[in-house]
Formats: sequence, C-alpha cells, structure tokens
Amino acid sequence: MSDDIFRDAYKPAEYNSNISKAKVYLTTCAINCDSPIVLVTSGGTTVPLECNTVRFIDNFSTGKRGSASTEYFLRRNCYVILLHRSGSLRPFFRHFDANMVDEAFSVDERDDLVVRKDSELGKNFRSIYDAYHKFRNKLLMIEFETCSEYLWYLRGIANLLTSYKSNAIYYMAAAVSDYYIPRDAMSEHKIQSSDAALDIKLFPVPKMLGHLCNTWSPEAFSVTFKLETDSTILISKAERSLQRYKQNLVIGNTLSDRRVRVTFISHSKDNVLKERLCETKGSDKSELEELIVDELLSSYRLWLSSE
Amino acid sequence: MSDDIFRDAYKPAEYNSNISKAKVYLTTCAINCDSPIVLVTSGGTTVPLECNTVRFIDNFSTGKRGSASTEYFLRRNCYVILLHRSGSLRPFFRHFDANMVDEAFSVDERDDLVVRKDSELGKNFRSIYDAYHKFRNKLLMIEFETCSEYLWYLRGIANLLTSYKSNAIYYMAAAVSDYYIPRDAMSEHKIQSSDAALDIKLFPVPKMLGHLCNTWSPEAFSVTFKLETDSTILISKAERSLQRYKQNLVIGNTLSDRRVRVTFISHSKDNVLKERLCETKGSDKSELEELIVDELLSSYRLWLSSE
Repeated sequence: MSDDIFRDAYKPAEYNSNISKAKVYLTTCAINCDSPIVLVTSGGTTVPLECNTVRFIDNFSTGKRGSASTEYFLRRNCYVILLHRSGSLRPFFRHFDANMVDEAFSVDERDDLVVRKDSELGKNFRSIYDAYHKFRNKLLMIEFETCSEYLWYLRGIANLLTSYKSNAIYYMAAAVSDYYIPRDAMSEHKIQSSDAALDIKLFPVPKMLGHLCNTWSPEAFSVTFKLETDSTILISKAERSLQRYKQNLVIGNTLSDRRVRVTFISHSKDNVLKERLCETKGSDKSELEELIVDELLSSYRLWLSSE
Repeated sequence: MSDDIFRDAYKPAEYNSNISKAKVYLTTCAINCDSPIVLVTSGGTTVPLECNTVRFIDNFSTGKRGSASTEYFLRRNCYVILLHRSGSLRPFFRHFDANMVDEAFSVDERDDLVVRKDSELGKNFRSIYDAYHKFRNKLLMIEFETCSEYLWYLRGIANLLTSYKSNAIYYMAAAVSDYYIPRDAMSEHKIQSSDAALDIKLFPVPKMLGHLCNTWSPEAFSVTFKLETDSTILISKAERSLQRYKQNLVIGNTLSDRRVRVTFISHSKDNVLKERLCETKGSDKSELEELIVDELLSSYRLWLSSE
C-alpha cells in the first residue's frame, strides 16, 4: 500500500518541469548558502472520489499559516520553496483581497487608475509591493491539488534538499489528508445520485513523515504541525508523533484559537518533553507567524550549534 | 429526512440579516419591476464530516458559470440576487486575479501606485471597473458554505420571490451535493487517523427542486444545470429531471468541454423533447455565458408571451 500512492497514475502532470525548476532554484541559492533553505508546505490536500473528479474530500485550510510564515522566513534572510495548494493564500498576494478592490481605486486626471492611499488596500500595499519585489527571487512556489500530488512533490524536493544537510528546514504546515481512495477503488465517472445512502471506504494515506525524517532528509531540521479540535488530546498526540517520527519540533494548535496561540512541543537531548507557548499579546501588532518563525529560528540555531 | 436539513442546527448564522437585506433589495427593484429578477446560484456546496469541521466533501466548481452569467444578466438590464459559495468567483471581481498584480502596477512620479495600461490587468480593468460601478446597485450577493446553508437560503429567497410570479427567473448553476451527513451521525471532533480503513455513510440530500418548481415559486421561470462526466447519459438524465421536477429548462454540460458548449434541453407544450446546442465559435470572442444568457432570455420572453 505504501508505494501505491506513488504510482504513475497519481504523478502530477507538471512534476518533471517543477522539479527541474527547483533544481535551478537551488543551484542559485547554493551560491549564497550561509542562509537556511526552508521547504514550507501549505494548504489542504484534496482526495478525489472519482477519476473524472466532480466530488472530492478536502481538508480545511486557507493557507494563511504557510503563506504568512513564508514572508517572515524571507524577511529573516532564508530561501523558501513554498509547496502550496493551488488557490490557497500566497505570500504577499494574500494581502490582496478582491473585496478591497471595490473601494481601492480612483481615476485621476490623466485617466489612470490609481490605488487610493486612504483605502484599506492603499494603507499597506506599497510596503507589501516593495517587499515582494525585494524577496521574489529568494522564493520558489510549486502548486499541488491532490494528496498524491503533494506527496510526489514532497519526496521529489526532499531528494534535492538532502544534500543541503542541516542547512535545510522542513516546515510542514500543509493540512494533509489521512485517508484516500486507491485508484482501483475509484469510480471512473461522477457517482450518480440515488435515494439510497452511499458508503465510501477510505484507506489510510501511508505516513511519509518517518521516511522524510529518517531516510529522505535525515540531517535536516524538521518541524511538523498538529491541528486538533479537542485541546485535551493535543499534547499527547504531539508527543506520540515525536516518538514515532523523530522530527525536531511539533507545533500544536487547536482550530478555535490557532490564530493567536500555538504550542512548541519537542524532546530535549535526554528525552524530556518540553512545551513552550507562543502567542500574540493583545497590544502587540505582530502576526503570530512572525513570532513562530523567530522562535523556530532560535531553536534551529541552538540545534545547529549543539550538533 | 426531508426536513432534517432545515433543523436549526444547520441554519446559517447570518440567515436573518441576509434575508432582511434581500427584502430591502427587492423593495428597491419593485420600483422598476419591468425587468426580470434573477436568482443565480453559483459554486459548490460543502458537506462537513465533523461538527468541528476539519474535513469536508466538496463539489468541484470555480463559480465561473454563475459569476460570468450574472454580469451578462446585469448588462441585459436584469436584477440579480447571486447566492454563491464563499470564496468562489464573483462578477466583475473574477477578472481580478492576484497573479496579475505582480506586473500590473508601477510607481509614478507622485509616488502613487498606478495600474499600468499595458499590463494584463490594465487592458480590461477600466471597462470592468466602470461596469461594476454602473451595475452594483442592481446586484445583491449572499454567501453560503455548506449544502444546508445553501438550501436554507434557497428556500428563504424563494419565499420572497414567489410574489414576483413570472417576473422571477431561477438560474441554478450551483453544484449542490447529492449527499450529506445528518447531524446525529456526524463526529463531534476531528476524526482521528488510524491504520485501518474508514467507512463513511452519506445520506441523500432531499431534492428541493420539486418544492421550488411546484410549491415555493410555481409561476417563475426555472432553469437548472446538469453536469456529467459521461456525455452519453447527459440528455437522458436531463429529460428525467424535466419529467420529475417540471422546470422550464435544463442546461446540460460535460466536465471536459463545459467552457465551450452546453445543450439547452426542454419540453415543448405538447411534451416533445427539444435540444439546442449553444457553443462558442473559434473566431468569436464572446464568452459562452453571454450566449447562454441571450438564448435563455429569448426562451423566457417566448414563454412569457405564451403564458
């Protein structure tokens, strides 16, 4: 089962060209390789119910965590490969909401459309515009849609990053499906509606995290996210994940307060569980992702120096 | 079962305020009520798998058909209530892709951000901007996310539209789920992953189309869409729908060529099945939705005059 999801039937159409782009990008980074190279994964993965897909299962995720974190990694001088769900929020562009367009423009005397400085968009757009143009060359974005596309890219990029050893950071913020439907069990065409109940059998997605942390890229610094809706099980589930996969850090969050608070969960060298709360304070204007990235890069440097 | 989806547990949080807005909007329209009032539904509905929703089933739809059609209805002097999936494409704003922002702006000598006329955005943005400001007051937009929210709004708006009789047109382009999970069968928290397969039992969504065409708004002109991936069953499925629900018109399309071709399927007064192809020609720059709206409004006027 564990290799089934890597059958050619699931391979992304753009796989070869995107992996080539990543190779070229990494060659460019390597010239200035005193900065970490971060793979950020972001957004939810889909699981099609039909080969000609009309219906699919999705994991709730706007891509806010991954796209915002990407901006702060770039501002801290990191290189970033962002593996993100198509249509999810993207760094810099995430500030650009079509809703704002409504009131953001005026027509000036030269008949030009001008961004109004007093509009919601205008207030921040210039600094975002400038940051984007400053950092765009340090960022490579690759899109996925389905869970299997995501796993293909994760493995492909890990194969490239492995030679960067401890200079590579994995920041796995994507909401990856735990279940999928193998190709052989999938309906070819749209499932027809009927008056009867419909049973769907979902199969567990093979866990790639163990491969990543122990085989694909064992020398990298690996950070995973754990989202729960029930806060009482969050720490124990994070600890089980640490024991099983040996990643360096789990960032735990609950659905209801994930925008203001996360918990850093890790094992010390002598295997004692450590928990650190990371949260925005009422008066502080910082985005939570800025605090997360700073805290994470401190942990990373500490880990580097103790290696 | 058929009323279960209208339990208060499923009622949209914004229901009362949105229905009030629709009442105010319709009062305004009624002043100039020689134009049709069109309810356009658009985008896919979600079906949550958990009460605290992390996972859900979705129906593939970008909202292109509904949002583009809305623009042409407005340009043909109709009033439009657009009931659309949150985050799906919206009329006018659909032309505004954050990707375009990348190259669309320049900073002028006054330090203003100006839309470059030679950019992809700049080429059409002015005419879209002008059209939006011309037509925005004839448009009311209401958002849904889940299948039950959609059905609540459909019933609520139909209750208001029924008094407009044959002046109302229903243009049902939303991709509504055929299945859902009743509240009692839903997991409270995020379903935990495991190494075993997961069985999900889905129950048929009660068919509201019969209620709509025969009880809620029997005097209106009702148009539904049928999407299939298998073109060989499209016409027969459309005919069965016409027989069952008595809508005025079914617009059939297949997933692979839905951007260039649809088929109008209806019954003549003496119950003979009529099919008319509606498609874009290679050299013609028109969007398919413009052709659909014009063809549909012709059918509507013919129907009105024969009533």
